[in-house]
Amino acid sequence: MRVRWINEGVCFPEGFLSSGVHCGIKEKDKDLGLIFCPQECWVAATFTTNKVKAAPVVVSAKKIAQNPTAKAIVVNSGNANCCTGQKGLNDAKEMCYLAAKELGIKEEEVLVCSTGVIGALLPMDRVREGIARAVKQLEREDLNFSKAILTTDTHTKRIAVEVEENGFTFRIGGCAKGAGMIYPNMATMLAFITTDVEIPRTELQAMLSKAVKESFNRISVDGDMSTNDTVILLSRKGKQLPKELIPIFQDVLTRVCESLALMIVRDGEGATKVVKVTVKGAKTEEDAEKACRKIVNSLLFKTALYGEDPNWGRIMGAVGASEAEITPEKIDIYFEDVKVVSCGMAVDPDAEKEATKVMQRDSFEVVIDLKMGDAQYHMFTCDLTYDYVRINAEYRS
Amino acid sequence: MRVRWINEGVCFPEGFLSSGVHCGIKEKDKDLGLIFCPQECWVAATFTTNKVKAAPVVVSAKKIAQNPTAKAIVVNSGNANCCTGQKGLNDAKEMCYLAAKELGIKEEEVLVCSTGVIGALLPMDRVREGIARAVKQLEREDLNFSKAILTTDTHTKRIAVEVEENGFTFRIGGCAKGAGMIYPNMATMLAFITTDVEIPRTELQAMLSKAVKESFNRISVDGDMSTNDTVILLSRKGKQLPKELIPIFQDVLTRVCESLALMIVRDGEGATKVVKVTVKGAKTEEDAEKACRKIVNSLLFKTALYGEDPNWGRIMGAVGASEAEITPEKIDIYFEDVKVVSCGMAVDPDAEKEATKVMQRDSFEVVIDLKMGDAQYHMFTCDLTYDYVRINAEYRS
Repeated sequence: MRVRWINEGVCFPEGFLSSGVHCGIKEKDKDLGLIFCPQECWVAATFTTNKVKAAPVVVSAKKIAQNPTAKAIVVNSGNANCCTGQKGLNDAKEMCYLAAKELGIKEEEVLVCSTGVIGALLPMDRVREGIARAVKQLEREDLNFSKAILTTDTHTKRIAVEVEENGFTFRIGGCAKGAGMIYPNMATMLAFITTDVEIPRTELQAMLSKAVKESFNRISVDGDMSTNDTVILLSRKGKQLPKELIPIFQDVLTRVCESLALMIVRDGEGATKVVKVTVKGAKTEEDAEKACRKIVNSLLFKTALYGEDPNWGRIMGAVGASEAEITPEKIDIYFEDVKVVSCGMAVDPDAEKEATKVMQRDSFEVVIDLKMGDAQYHMFTCDLTYDYVRINAEYRS
Repeated sequence: MRVRWINEGVCFPEGFLSSGVHCGIKEKDKDLGLIFCPQECWVAATFTTNKVKAAPVVVSAKKIAQNPTAKAIVVNSGNANCCTGQKGLNDAKEMCYLAAKELGIKEEEVLVCSTGVIGALLPMDRVREGIARAVKQLEREDLNFSKAILTTDTHTKRIAVEVEENGFTFRIGGCAKGAGMIYPNMATMLAFITTDVEIPRTELQAMLSKAVKESFNRISVDGDMSTNDTVILLSRKGKQLPKELIPIFQDVLTRVCESLALMIVRDGEGATKVVKVTVKGAKTEEDAEKACRKIVNSLLFKTALYGEDPNWGRIMGAVGASEAEITPEKIDIYFEDVKVVSCGMAVDPDAEKEATKVMQRDSFEVVIDLKMGDAQYHMFTCDLTYDYVRINAEYRS
């Protein structure tokens, strides 16, 4: 098997076109993107579990439930089209209708996503003009699309991979946005993944759900769950994926999702560090997950990351506040290979000095060993900095 | 009935003595405090529900379970005596023993509390000397005691009240600390409340539990639950509270706790505003509480408070992410009397301008009406500012 990761150039496989334009939803920067595949695709998707759902989430989820195929996705940034009532639903549907009309396909074949400020109506005159222009500017290149979906992100997030096995080649390409309001499940962002092989719809959805669970649902920037989260996977019909390659496809898809998820954490609002938190030795995976989520969402832990202070008492406090079954006197804590806590107590001041050095890195792992059993869970998070406060205090001003 | 709130002078009623000294646990500032009542007191208390409990929590809870009376409480700041193993337990017990010896009372009559950094052993030589000095410096004045229990607090937190009804007078005086690691339950801080009337132990505990539920358990600074939370109420034996005054005592006790809880939020690390969040119109109080807790712990909500931005989309997002039963299209949101959301949608830009003016105040109320039923719940929180990040990134350095 040959696996080639592609970090430069076009990330969507051949057969997919895209574009990104500025139409005036934002003051500047691109704000309207389009993905188009002239060939029909199977669609798998996961959406936010927030009970307050944006209009495009409602519209796209309903379309996929009725018929899980599509040829295009129209996306805007700068406005979430959420809490916008019937008018918002009409606007989301009109976005699909306009894209379909310009592309010469059926309205049912277009999905829609939005991201940005909640509660404002879309400036539909600008959106209409933007969609017409986006259709005219469709291209193989996908840099413009990946720019058009950003909000507080500081850079585009793209990844592609080509896999060859027994003479069969397939490609997966993905592109995501997200920097704040990042918390599972599902992971508070938009991601668009495309592949040039056909996978039956049921298997496609199962594979995407598994990949999302292992990737986007394991990141947290600020613990705030969005109203617009969406991951869409398009599988171009035609070239069937051989049955025996399904496990490989699943593995690569998960890694594509994980790469995009990590890019989101790395670009977390104001973040300077990405930290993997692993809770192991738990009685059950559920316990490990509970403890892990409590740690990655602890403001005290996240500010200590920023301060490069191995203040493990805050980790103990978070684990103790979680619903995980623990015995405090058993817990060991490591910063990479530096053990700072042994059986619930400090190792020695030198260990903390070594841990401080580990924390000066851009990314590192913290391992909490509960010594209660064999289950484990990991998540990725970032530090909480002045810039997070600045970005979010000033977001709309 | 005459109720006189006392904001100046001594807050503990006559019969209680206290002191506060600097013994060297902290670099500077007082760090060891003592409360002493030569007459025996009934004790009621609530402790942290964190599974990682500090040694003094374990020691004091056990003592109270065995015999709910006491004459003294010894408290240190600057060191939480948590995650310190058997040595920590021995140290907590020794603190009781030393105070008892110097005071000439029994070891069982002394309770102990600690607050500060987790994971370091107490410098017991300094603590021993400090306790001896604290006993010698006992006085009616309680300002020194209230200073000695502080950590990142910027000021002391004290309140007293005198109630006269049908010729019977009683007094309640309280003193608290807390600024960070503030989240129910129970509310991540220390508070010491004294009264000069005798109330049977069972009723005393029930009244304290009710008061704590209505006050300290309704505040959140950062959502991090401490390992050392303790509220202790001492009821001096002798002058029995007449049965008919029990409801009045309960009411006043709750108000004393609420005053202290509000002082903690107002002094929240880096906080510039105190905001009351009320969720009403819920189907059940549990639903109202779930939605309320999700809002007060949302980083996006808390940074928007700092930015004085009535970004109600973040409130909708938090409510939707909670487990409360809601219908998004029914929700109304008010900033004081300014309605910014009606039936899940924006009212108009003028309303947001008015709401911005409300947010410029030091304290105000946000009301979320779910319109699902009659239940409601409120909590107090503060904004998330640069200074929270600074204080917690630099805490140990």
